Amino acid sequence: MKAMGPIPAGFAAGADGALTLGGFGTEELIGSHGAPLFAYDRAIVARQVEAFRSAFPGIGLHFAVKANPHAPLLQHMAGLVDGFDLASAGELARVEAAGLLQPGLPLSFAGPGKSNHDLSEALAAGVCVHVESEHELERLLQVADIMSQRPAIGVRVNPPFGLKGSGMKMGGLASQFGVDHDRVPALVRRIVEVGAKWRGLHVYAGSQSLSAEAVIEMQRATVALAAEIATEVGLTPPEVNLGGGFGIPYFSGDKPLDIEAVGAALRDTLAARPAVLQDTKFVIELGRWLVGECGVYLTRVVDRKVSRGKTFLVVDGGLHHMLAASGNFGQLLRRNYPVAVANRFGHEPEEEVTIVGCLCTPLDLLADEVMLPRAEIGDVIAIFCAGAYALTASPQTFLSQGVAREVLV
Amino acid sequence: MKAMGPIPAGFAAGADGALTLGGFGTEELIGSHGAPLFAYDRAIVARQVEAFRSAFPGIGLHFAVKANPHAPLLQHMAGLVDGFDLASAGELARVEAAGLLQPGLPLSFAGPGKSNHDLSEALAAGVCVHVESEHELERLLQVADIMSQRPAIGVRVNPPFGLKGSGMKMGGLASQFGVDHDRVPALVRRIVEVGAKWRGLHVYAGSQSLSAEAVIEMQRATVALAAEIATEVGLTPPEVNLGGGFGIPYFSGDKPLDIEAVGAALRDTLAARPAVLQDTKFVIELGRWLVGECGVYLTRVVDRKVSRGKTFLVVDGGLHHMLAASGNFGQLLRRNYPVAVANRFGHEPEEEVTIVGCLCTPLDLLADEVMLPRAEIGDVIAIFCAGAYALTASPQTFLSQGVAREVLV
Repeated sequence: MKAMGPIPAGFAAGADGALTLGGFGTEELIGSHGAPLFAYDRAIVARQVEAFRSAFPGIGLHFAVKANPHAPLLQHMAGLVDGFDLASAGELARVEAAGLLQPGLPLSFAGPGKSNHDLSEALAAGVCVHVESEHELERLLQVADIMSQRPAIGVRVNPPFGLKGSGMKMGGLASQFGVDHDRVPALVRRIVEVGAKWRGLHVYAGSQSLSAEAVIEMQRATVALAAEIATEVGLTPPEVNLGGGFGIPYFSGDKPLDIEAVGAALRDTLAARPAVLQDTKFVIELGRWLVGECGVYLTRVVDRKVSRGKTFLVVDGGLHHMLAASGNFGQLLRRNYPVAVANRFGHEPEEEVTIVGCLCTPLDLLADEVMLPRAEIGDVIAIFCAGAYALTASPQTFLSQGVAREVLV
Repeated sequence: MKAMGPIPAGFAAGADGALTLGGFGTEELIGSHGAPLFAYDRAIVARQVEAFRSAFPGIGLHFAVKANPHAPLLQHMAGLVDGFDLASAGELARVEAAGLLQPGLPLSFAGPGKSNHDLSEALAAGVCVHVESEHELERLLQVADIMSQRPAIGVRVNPPFGLKGSGMKMGGLASQFGVDHDRVPALVRRIVEVGAKWRGLHVYAGSQSLSAEAVIEMQRATVALAAEIATEVGLTPPEVNLGGGFGIPYFSGDKPLDIEAVGAALRDTLAARPAVLQDTKFVIELGRWLVGECGVYLTRVVDRKVSRGKTFLVVDGGLHHMLAASGNFGQLLRRNYPVAVANRFGHEPEEEVTIVGCLCTPLDLLADEVMLPRAEIGDVIAIFCAGAYALTASPQTFLSQGVAREVLV
């Protein structure tokens, strides 16, 4: 038997013993939308935003669209957060297609490989561009000149520190992200000198941390770095994006990040900030933490077979929809996501099973030797933590298998 | 500096010093088709098939469509091989869309999660179904009964051995693939008793091996296992699919598989086979080995930046097209694929660079600290070994970045 991660809070069974989302049973959802299905629970998203607001009063909250660009989810999110952070012109197009390109929803665009086309799309839509290199700034100024625009520009900083113990460290190293911190003041001066709108600084030092201490330390260091840069250029940054880094529990032993502690420490840090940052607006950019727990991937058992004494459930989904659960996306060691038999939710575990997808590859392993209530052919398996970096981060055309549906409930 | 894999044989520079494929320069190809671009060289595919024919006279050659289902490539392949192996009803649809659903091109369908819909699609198209469990056989018989068809059925065997040192071991273990070998005779008897067409056995013990010794041993064991099963049921299998397992060099130090040695040993093995297999047709099923080396992923440099002394080339492609080169698909340790500056092909290396994609994630690393001729913004990077498990095995919608084009030249 191998352990699996904890099922996120907020899920319960209906009267028939089956998992419900947004008041709908899983069979009801699959009946309406098809399987395999990603179902996203809007109440869980709202709960996360409320928890953030309570822990971080006065701090802006941006949604990182890359975590999940499903249109109804973006629309739901638009009513809850203060802005969207984009990582491509394609994400801008998705925001526009969702009817959200309107004044009042600030948009910013970061990413290391912006083409001139990406930059002109961003400028045309009034998006603040976070430049990632000196060369990108010059291209942006050229494009803006051609478009007779006065661009809004932030500078993405490659900080001299990283987020300790983070799933993905994005600072403290040589990196393709942002401009090394010691070259940032010159870049800011150039932005101001050419008459562009300098919007501030963006520092993203890592992601998926469950350690309040590490996030607190990163935020302290970020505020100090912003103060240092602001002092050197002699200007107050209108905005400092503190990045994200808030993790969610995926695996056995993972404990939720203590955001109350992070919020209290950030209040202390900001209370003690130097005068040069007094009028700065601080923003935190979250993707996974806001939506990761709201999503469940539902996939039906098509075969139940025994091989050399081991029981396999073969499902109609697989890594082509949910690569991360197979352990093949940025994980060094494969561990089990939280899974359940949706139509026997909360029942006592009865047997050890290995859940595999329908792809003809041994990589397609969704849950390895987990204890579950007995599942038969036709039953539905729920894989949790499927709200962020799930469907879009999977090789959907692999082996030309079927598509997955998505629904926000 | 870190090593990279060997550039496959068959690539050369044109008069202008730029890499050519099928007689076209890379700029010419990108000019016509756009970038990023997967270009597949049909001459390299033909070369591989010829090498196979020379080493394995009398052995059938099937193409595993999952390696690369690009329609023009399937059409090219149809003229070269003896059949196609499918892993989904979607692959059958791709074969049909390519105009290849016609008598004379045998099709077989293996995969652990076949739905009733998959089975009926296969039967309607006259595809031989390789059943993977007792339950799947019964469902297939039911579906055939409803369709008033006499199905052609092979049995996929889970062998008691694996391919030693293989990239992906698919035998010798409890597995979702096939039926444990000791339960196969009963299944064959059932197929014959109900009056279905028994087509034979399919044994796939692993993939991506560069060891002739290991492949030889696997083929010997497979023939012996087929003889054992055939003797037990007292029937000659019309066909035995020996699987594949032929690897290609991806990384530094990798040497090509010696297929002459494998072919010679297989001739010896088959010369000594028992009478019960005398009239059996033997087939080898290859995907990666046939098409892996024919493909090159071409992506343009959009930024060249230095961070803390390290030079980064940021390209307009990334892991959303070429996940395997980032090390995030079935690899324990990330190593560098062979890469080159396409417009300075064969030039002496001049500097150490790290090539990253345009995605806003540190996972998007395409070549780490490799020595290359100097590349400027606008130059084209070629990533080799991009003909199999490349575009379709990548998360193409991740971060809503641009699509890749494909062309067969």
